[in-house]
Amino acid sequence: MEGQDRQAVGAGALTPGADAPIQTDALIIGAGPVGLFQAFQLGLLEISSHIVDALPHAGGQCVELYGDKPIYDIPGVPATTGRGLVASLLQQLAPFKPHFHLGQQIATLVQRDDGRWALGTTRGAQFIARTVFIAAGVGAFVPRRLTLDGIDALEGDRLFYHPGALDRFHGQAVVVNGGDDAALDTALALTGHAAEVTLLHRRDVFQADEAKVEALRTQVAAGTLQLRIGQPTAFDGSQLTVSTPEGTTLTLALDALVVCNGISPRLGPIADWGLALERKQIPVDTGKFETQLPGVFAVGDINTYPGKRKLILCGFHEATLAAWGATAYVFPGKAVPLQYTTTSPRLQALLKGG
Amino acid sequence: MEGQDRQAVGAGALTPGADAPIQTDALIIGAGPVGLFQAFQLGLLEISSHIVDALPHAGGQCVELYGDKPIYDIPGVPATTGRGLVASLLQQLAPFKPHFHLGQQIATLVQRDDGRWALGTTRGAQFIARTVFIAAGVGAFVPRRLTLDGIDALEGDRLFYHPGALDRFHGQAVVVNGGDDAALDTALALTGHAAEVTLLHRRDVFQADEAKVEALRTQVAAGTLQLRIGQPTAFDGSQLTVSTPEGTTLTLALDALVVCNGISPRLGPIADWGLALERKQIPVDTGKFETQLPGVFAVGDINTYPGKRKLILCGFHEATLAAWGATAYVFPGKAVPLQYTTTSPRLQALLKGG
Repeated sequence: MEGQDRQAVGAGALTPGADAPIQTDALIIGAGPVGLFQAFQLGLLEISSHIVDALPHAGGQCVELYGDKPIYDIPGVPATTGRGLVASLLQQLAPFKPHFHLGQQIATLVQRDDGRWALGTTRGAQFIARTVFIAAGVGAFVPRRLTLDGIDALEGDRLFYHPGALDRFHGQAVVVNGGDDAALDTALALTGHAAEVTLLHRRDVFQADEAKVEALRTQVAAGTLQLRIGQPTAFDGSQLTVSTPEGTTLTLALDALVVCNGISPRLGPIADWGLALERKQIPVDTGKFETQLPGVFAVGDINTYPGKRKLILCGFHEATLAAWGATAYVFPGKAVPLQYTTTSPRLQALLKGG
Repeated sequence: MEGQDRQAVGAGALTPGADAPIQTDALIIGAGPVGLFQAFQLGLLEISSHIVDALPHAGGQCVELYGDKPIYDIPGVPATTGRGLVASLLQQLAPFKPHFHLGQQIATLVQRDDGRWALGTTRGAQFIARTVFIAAGVGAFVPRRLTLDGIDALEGDRLFYHPGALDRFHGQAVVVNGGDDAALDTALALTGHAAEVTLLHRRDVFQADEAKVEALRTQVAAGTLQLRIGQPTAFDGSQLTVSTPEGTTLTLALDALVVCNGISPRLGPIADWGLALERKQIPVDTGKFETQLPGVFAVGDINTYPGKRKLILCGFHEATLAAWGATAYVFPGKAVPLQYTTTSPRLQALLKGG
């Protein structure tokens, strides 16, 4: 995943903000396995693409939900893991030098007068794309938010879901809310940065690696990390009110609250783009996997058609035919012949990064 | 491929002849990559299958046409070869202990009164199958035949296309006709068995590994192997008449003629089963990849539907949905839930050979 993290950093330079829309043949929504293979198939057809994903890394469900779990039904791959599959797909895609825009969602999709699609992300990046590929799986993986009155205004200043670099918390009193691996990782890592670290969890049991729980207990015993049990009920930016299991109320003074309550998939803005949804899925044809919006394709778990099974290998096929569907928009009037990577010098040159 | 050759030997015991039809849930025609993955997907659904292929080994086109050539577009496999892909698919399929019937073609397909399908092979094996999967690619790879008057009657006695074990030629005078790797391999191997070996090729240039050509030249120089240039024009079982490039005629006395003129794909008997063919391809729906014959599916390069691209990865998807299509015939009236290899203990037990 290192290579892909480097990509993500490089991709930062590609999100210049609202003033300079990025023009591209194809915009891919979702960097899960099917989105990655979508970019590969488009690359073989010499169709440029950009990939946007809500998570700070590529891989989607594969990495979030079963990163280290086994997968046995990828054809020709007797056994892999979510993370292993994504690493292979990133390696396969590498010759096409993919452009990632991570940690942001496509918020808007509007057709322009010239037929192309204007898209904007939650972080202000703008795209103008001839074709759009919705490979959004079960939705964008976004942090489960804390629902307390008036806290949204504190986000990015006193309240964080994706804290990113931890040096911003230097010298501060920080409360981390959560009990999973990410919460423990964050709390433990913060002891090297913040002046005071408190882990707040609803109970004294953690859904995390044993070694991490052990490290937590050691730090608590040493007094370098506080542990509080309870649920947040109010937050004003400098004071967090907590309800304990015993029915009492705690107040914690703090400079920042980092919430690690896991992530959950949300369809999000996709529901607002005028697509005909069937039970949160997008109907497509089976020849091009195109939605009812011209030039907008849907592939992988988010689409539906007669016979649909939510399997990664089916998404690979869908992405392939969708890439061919895009040729009508990207190369109008041109018949693009099917070439084989086994025999085509042109494809082999492309795959060498030529 | 060794594992698969062992399978092939074992499969010999499974072709008992016309007197004992093999009953199976599914009969797969073609042991190319799509046929192999078809068996895997059927296995996940606990549907038993038998696989028949014209070639003496699994792999189809992948091994015959591009065994050592690169393939770059198998999803999650940045680079492999035809042979590498087939080896991986055989490994993936191994937990389901596949039953191969190699070196024979399905000659007949007839629906029985009970709705099941009766099938017979060119070697006399008989099957009764609830479902049939035609994964025959561009057709059966069969040896290119020598077309000389009256020689068909000599086949298996004085004329051979797949010679098989070479000890049958002990003490004989054998002519090998051809100039490719298989021809040179056969001629060189025969020097250890036959009394006299002649390689007959239309010209003194060979489409074969340099090392094999070198070995041939060495044997010719040593007098242990004869080389003749020309084309066969007549064969009566003990004398082969040959026309040379100079326009003269040679006669070669011999006990056996082994023809290695390569193999070529032929649709063969499939054309006679009442399937609606479109340019030698079988139309299917895209939900189940079923033909117009109930319970007969077509997957991979041999089928056609709107958007069809002849790509291996598309065949994998087709085989998967076709396997689901088979559940209606194999488990009538039963709703089979989709399970994931990542999370299902049942599937994981099956994959461990349980």
